[in-house]
Amino acid sequence: MTETTNTAASACAIADAAHAAATSATAPDIVCAANIAENPYKRDFPLLANHPDLAFLDSAATAQRPKTVLDAQRRFYEEMNANALRGLYRLSVEATEAIDVARNRVARFIGAPKAQDVVMCRNASEALNIVAKAFAPTVLEPGDEVCITIMEHHSNLIPWQQACRAAGAKLVYLYPDENGIITPEEMDAKIGPKTKILSCVHVSNVLGIENPVKELGRRVHEQGGYFVVDGAQSVPHVKVDVTEIGCDFLAFSAHKLFGPFGMGVLWGKDELLNAMPPFLTGGEMIDNVTEQDATWAPVPEKFEAGTQDAAGIYATAAAVAYVESVGIDVIEAREKALVAYCMEELGKLDFVTIIGHPDANMHHGVVSFNVNGIHPHDVASILDMDQVAIRAGHHCAQPLLTWLGVENLACCRASLAFYNDKGDVDKLVAGLNRVWSMFHGE
Amino acid sequence: MTETTNTAASACAIADAAHAAATSATAPDIVCAANIAENPYKRDFPLLANHPDLAFLDSAATAQRPKTVLDAQRRFYEEMNANALRGLYRLSVEATEAIDVARNRVARFIGAPKAQDVVMCRNASEALNIVAKAFAPTVLEPGDEVCITIMEHHSNLIPWQQACRAAGAKLVYLYPDENGIITPEEMDAKIGPKTKILSCVHVSNVLGIENPVKELGRRVHEQGGYFVVDGAQSVPHVKVDVTEIGCDFLAFSAHKLFGPFGMGVLWGKDELLNAMPPFLTGGEMIDNVTEQDATWAPVPEKFEAGTQDAAGIYATAAAVAYVESVGIDVIEAREKALVAYCMEELGKLDFVTIIGHPDANMHHGVVSFNVNGIHPHDVASILDMDQVAIRAGHHCAQPLLTWLGVENLACCRASLAFYNDKGDVDKLVAGLNRVWSMFHGE
Repeated sequence: MTETTNTAASACAIADAAHAAATSATAPDIVCAANIAENPYKRDFPLLANHPDLAFLDSAATAQRPKTVLDAQRRFYEEMNANALRGLYRLSVEATEAIDVARNRVARFIGAPKAQDVVMCRNASEALNIVAKAFAPTVLEPGDEVCITIMEHHSNLIPWQQACRAAGAKLVYLYPDENGIITPEEMDAKIGPKTKILSCVHVSNVLGIENPVKELGRRVHEQGGYFVVDGAQSVPHVKVDVTEIGCDFLAFSAHKLFGPFGMGVLWGKDELLNAMPPFLTGGEMIDNVTEQDATWAPVPEKFEAGTQDAAGIYATAAAVAYVESVGIDVIEAREKALVAYCMEELGKLDFVTIIGHPDANMHHGVVSFNVNGIHPHDVASILDMDQVAIRAGHHCAQPLLTWLGVENLACCRASLAFYNDKGDVDKLVAGLNRVWSMFHGE
Repeated sequence: MTETTNTAASACAIADAAHAAATSATAPDIVCAANIAENPYKRDFPLLANHPDLAFLDSAATAQRPKTVLDAQRRFYEEMNANALRGLYRLSVEATEAIDVARNRVARFIGAPKAQDVVMCRNASEALNIVAKAFAPTVLEPGDEVCITIMEHHSNLIPWQQACRAAGAKLVYLYPDENGIITPEEMDAKIGPKTKILSCVHVSNVLGIENPVKELGRRVHEQGGYFVVDGAQSVPHVKVDVTEIGCDFLAFSAHKLFGPFGMGVLWGKDELLNAMPPFLTGGEMIDNVTEQDATWAPVPEKFEAGTQDAAGIYATAAAVAYVESVGIDVIEAREKALVAYCMEELGKLDFVTIIGHPDANMHHGVVSFNVNGIHPHDVASILDMDQVAIRAGHHCAQPLLTWLGVENLACCRASLAFYNDKGDVDKLVAGLNRVWSMFHGE
């Protein structure tokens, strides 16, 4: 695989242009503007600019995309489009180089030692399925344990139910304390010599809490097990460095990182990716195919069956460039300030119960809550009339909602990104007052 | 699942706009313009318009995309972007409806009785993996046979090698005659009471030949087996109707059908999709999840784990609308005329050997060939200097190239789409003359 070449560097121009385009937004506006007119970040996002009265508080489900990402995706189709990896003509070579450049950019972004260990797949769900269905069977034996937390998204839960069932292993849960913290005592009780794999969500999509991944990784490695991190809700919000965390696998989605739908990343340690079999088969993931047998291409192609979404990969690089241009530290600081404001304001509503840690610093972009006695679906539907978009339901974390004991196994969730502002929170609060009035009359 | 609603209908406006936009190209220009100035279709495709001197003869690898498809994809992100299925606010509901509309449009396009049986996945490779990894294990028993042809793409070959190995079944090959035709005698010899699954490429990506899928389906059904069709190379070129073919599963990719990368379709018979287990797990493909168990959502959600590429699905509908606006009959007629011209002109070059059937009518958009004594990679690289883009190599069909006995297990392939013109073929011929001259001097 080639490293950055002149052609590839020019192919990545759009990604670099993101830096320039975003300079209008590089001033770390930590105070968080009161409305869109004072919020330079929203201007980078066409949907937000097109909907100035919308309070989009559902970025944990899918983020909005900056213009630079949409430009990159379109530019690929209009100027470079060809099937990568398989061609000997200029367009196809350019497409291949664009993928290499993107892989390098993603690798650098997550602190991966080698770009080749960045597998471009569809989303975090697929990445976690690859680990549970292709890696896990190579290490799990009857009687082994797989350890996850009760706050996993279904995508990091059902694959492990299935892997355990297939291997005769046991699925063990780590439960947090009442504030959402997984204590050392709980780790002592659950992580032991039988723990072959520990797979953990880095930031909970319901509680917003960041789990102690370094400590969890250290403990499972001490026991000779492997450590998988679901970074779907952390990579867009905090600095994630696979080397610093010390994990064996990391999964995340581009569409939550301001990139395109349909793209995800599985990073894995070199020796593990090399040793495990492929998951999907077909296309250029092979070395040699005979009528009855096949051998595999090296990593990462081994895991990239079928035609790659080269435009999506190119746009993912543009998304990473955009995030870098804003600065992950700025993103984190803005989100913390917004969450603090949001929790402060929601705290003033005596009919609202906030779920999770009482300290706003422990919520990464996510504030889940319920309105006393009113079904979350009704809350979301009424808020929608005021153009306030939140999510309501089980958030693909049914076991967590069961454990939390929330009514209807559902809750409301306002998820904030750095492009939100105080005006969005104010609309949420006004909307919640309206919800309460509608149910309780004035 | 809702049928078309007013909102959804307006959400599909861009797809309908494709009809209007393409009216400039509805005159069935069967004679095939001599150059881009006289070719109205190329104007619909930004990349072709941006590269007026490019002879893009690699549409079988990935097609170019019309402006209407790129507009649809972008419009989704700029005006409708939200995570579908999971939201109760307007944007998310619109996204969900757009997916329903797209599913209905795709279903109608392939003659599927029910839109719900259209599973939106990543590409044909993934669709075939789903059948081989989730359906096949439910029907294959030791001693059973899976029958495929020697002309399968690796994506419809390696998954069956693995399915057979897992089940203790035998992988049996249908071989064509010297012209690429699978004869009734070969079917007699290979399709029998042990044949539990017959999976067959509809149109070969190397030979361009259309296999007798109705006859193959009839025979395997007579034996009580199941029939899978790989439509990756047929759906973009000829009318494909699952009811008329009588298959049990059909797989194809959007990116070869002028749609976006990263989108594919698996259609399956209702009762089979309902009975089989999911493939990927996580996200909204569930009904109920407890700590140790999970039950599944109905079809198609059962097979659509993780966040769907709603923008890609929306753009896929626009691609289908574009194809319908041009007319699949016009597409087929233009391609036949172009292939006939191409084979006639290549036939005049005594240093070129055409692979496959001598009758141009038996090639659907694909003309494979070799230049005597010159490696296909060299041919492609030299043609690229003249801006002629062809593909060279094993075309992800190594067993076929082995069976064909071509030197270096490689060949050149010019693949034509309806947007090509005689000028593109003339450039190919001029380029091949130059290749020959470079190797053999003047």
